[in-house]
Amino acid sequence: MSSEFSFIQQIRQRALQASPNLSLGIGDDTAIWREQAGRERLITTDLLIENVHFKLDYTPLACLGHKALAVSLSDIAAMGGKPEFALLSLGLPKSQLANPAWQDFFDGYFALARKHGVTLIGGDTSSSPDTLVVDSIVIGSCASGKAIRRSGAQVGDAIYVTGELGAAATGLELLLRGEKYDATTNDLRQAAIRAHLLPEPRLAFAQRLNSLAGAMMDVSDGLAQDLAHICEESDVDAIIDFDAVPIADCVRLVRPVKEEAFSLGISGGEDYELLLTTNPANEAALQNLATKCQLRLTRIGEIIVRRLPQAKPQLFLRTADSVDLLTVKGYDHFCR
Amino acid sequence: MSSEFSFIQQIRQRALQASPNLSLGIGDDTAIWREQAGRERLITTDLLIENVHFKLDYTPLACLGHKALAVSLSDIAAMGGKPEFALLSLGLPKSQLANPAWQDFFDGYFALARKHGVTLIGGDTSSSPDTLVVDSIVIGSCASGKAIRRSGAQVGDAIYVTGELGAAATGLELLLRGEKYDATTNDLRQAAIRAHLLPEPRLAFAQRLNSLAGAMMDVSDGLAQDLAHICEESDVDAIIDFDAVPIADCVRLVRPVKEEAFSLGISGGEDYELLLTTNPANEAALQNLATKCQLRLTRIGEIIVRRLPQAKPQLFLRTADSVDLLTVKGYDHFCR
Repeated sequence: MSSEFSFIQQIRQRALQASPNLSLGIGDDTAIWREQAGRERLITTDLLIENVHFKLDYTPLACLGHKALAVSLSDIAAMGGKPEFALLSLGLPKSQLANPAWQDFFDGYFALARKHGVTLIGGDTSSSPDTLVVDSIVIGSCASGKAIRRSGAQVGDAIYVTGELGAAATGLELLLRGEKYDATTNDLRQAAIRAHLLPEPRLAFAQRLNSLAGAMMDVSDGLAQDLAHICEESDVDAIIDFDAVPIADCVRLVRPVKEEAFSLGISGGEDYELLLTTNPANEAALQNLATKCQLRLTRIGEIIVRRLPQAKPQLFLRTADSVDLLTVKGYDHFCR
Repeated sequence: MSSEFSFIQQIRQRALQASPNLSLGIGDDTAIWREQAGRERLITTDLLIENVHFKLDYTPLACLGHKALAVSLSDIAAMGGKPEFALLSLGLPKSQLANPAWQDFFDGYFALARKHGVTLIGGDTSSSPDTLVVDSIVIGSCASGKAIRRSGAQVGDAIYVTGELGAAATGLELLLRGEKYDATTNDLRQAAIRAHLLPEPRLAFAQRLNSLAGAMMDVSDGLAQDLAHICEESDVDAIIDFDAVPIADCVRLVRPVKEEAFSLGISGGEDYELLLTTNPANEAALQNLATKCQLRLTRIGEIIVRRLPQAKPQLFLRTADSVDLLTVKGYDHFCR
């Protein structure tokens, strides 16, 4: 891979994939697809920067390729959408251009793309002085008016979360302590590391929700902060139950005290689970769907009326003894 | 601007703009727009990395904001499309987050967006260790089947280019020698610097071409290399006329010898003019349109049959005395 053009040529070869509405993929000034009446388009972009979002000493390139696509697919899932197309922009330090392991990056990327029927249709490639930069763009669609927005939460809705929380933050902590990803070992440590390096977007579940969810988003910045986003956009407050929140088993590896495990579980980022609200009458149908999708789904609280209409949203934490205001701490990419 | 969220909040305020088919802009997991039957969507992305694509010592942030959008708009122009939506991903060194001049970046960005009716609907923001990173994404549309591709050049087509070539490369050379952008001075030096810092996408002309162009692309990597792309995708070769190629006056500031000025004109990148081919019978109509758009349009050569069907495309240069093979040198982002 001696130049930008041969590098792009290789990506183009691997990207070749038929897609029903695609008119033109990689190789022109723009990609082109045909629009369909009655559909809405969804688009999301996620910037991953070396030494901010990942370090190469603990991130195998195959995992990075998977994760770059997974985080954007998770945004499409969060709207209840079906992903279709992707674009990928890469800024590569010269040392990386000559690195044969870039095939691993594309192995990881295209394996996940194939799994979810996503076709790479464009992107950009450039050198970068020191830092590896990946910008992942995914385009999906849904029936008109059916996207599940953050603004749809109603007072009295129950709040649900898929899977378990805190595993990705635990995995990151283990990796930062020097542990390594090992695909051949199945233990709690590797479960945590996999949760961080190889998140699985909850697309199958999300696409079958239809009207079962009022509001939804993915948990990328930590449950507390993300629930605050739903409350902000929906003009409501929320209560969550300390004992209900599903903290992943592996969190005890790094936070043996229950309160500390809870804190990491609701503030650690990058779980890429789905957080949704719905009328409690939908509980049985929702659990049924989760079972079909082999996904744990947990009711963790409820949406309440905002006390001061113009105020910032408030989250409350209910334990056996009390209800307290929950201080929202989450993930700010500028404040680490 | 103390955190990612307040920074995004400010962008969101400035991005507020109605757009006919937009369902949801900044503020959810994805943006949403309504699809229309009979239209095709165009999408392009351009990665701009500090010290690769620009240096901050000679690039005012207002110019950077303009250029980040302009280069992507130019790709939409190159297809004959109408731009509608944009996304913007920013990786900011911490020093930049506290820099009040970021308002200038958005002044430049949104001024150009307003001029062309483009609405910012999403993006991502992150810190970056040392290097400023901008990924610009633009989405446009055209009537189904009407996008002007690189692959549409036919044997016998005349080749045209808008504007003049080499000014942007000249401007870059002047900036690298220490000259500065000065909005208040109108001379050849500042014309060159403006060509580099503030390119104008040729959207008005491009959108009115309809079937007047067979193949088109924008000149971003240098005329010779970009014409080779058209030849590659169209399975043809091309001849260009040394005396016809419109080299910008300012090029003589850095290349006083005519042959050297020509060489910079056809290999220097970032002119963002349009390169197109069409049946010579369209000449009058094409010139008419260019005049209406106050754009210089020059016939510079013609498309010829490829001698060896499987071979790489060849470009020939015709002078008063001879026809010689033109060695294609252009811009490879990895080879500087």
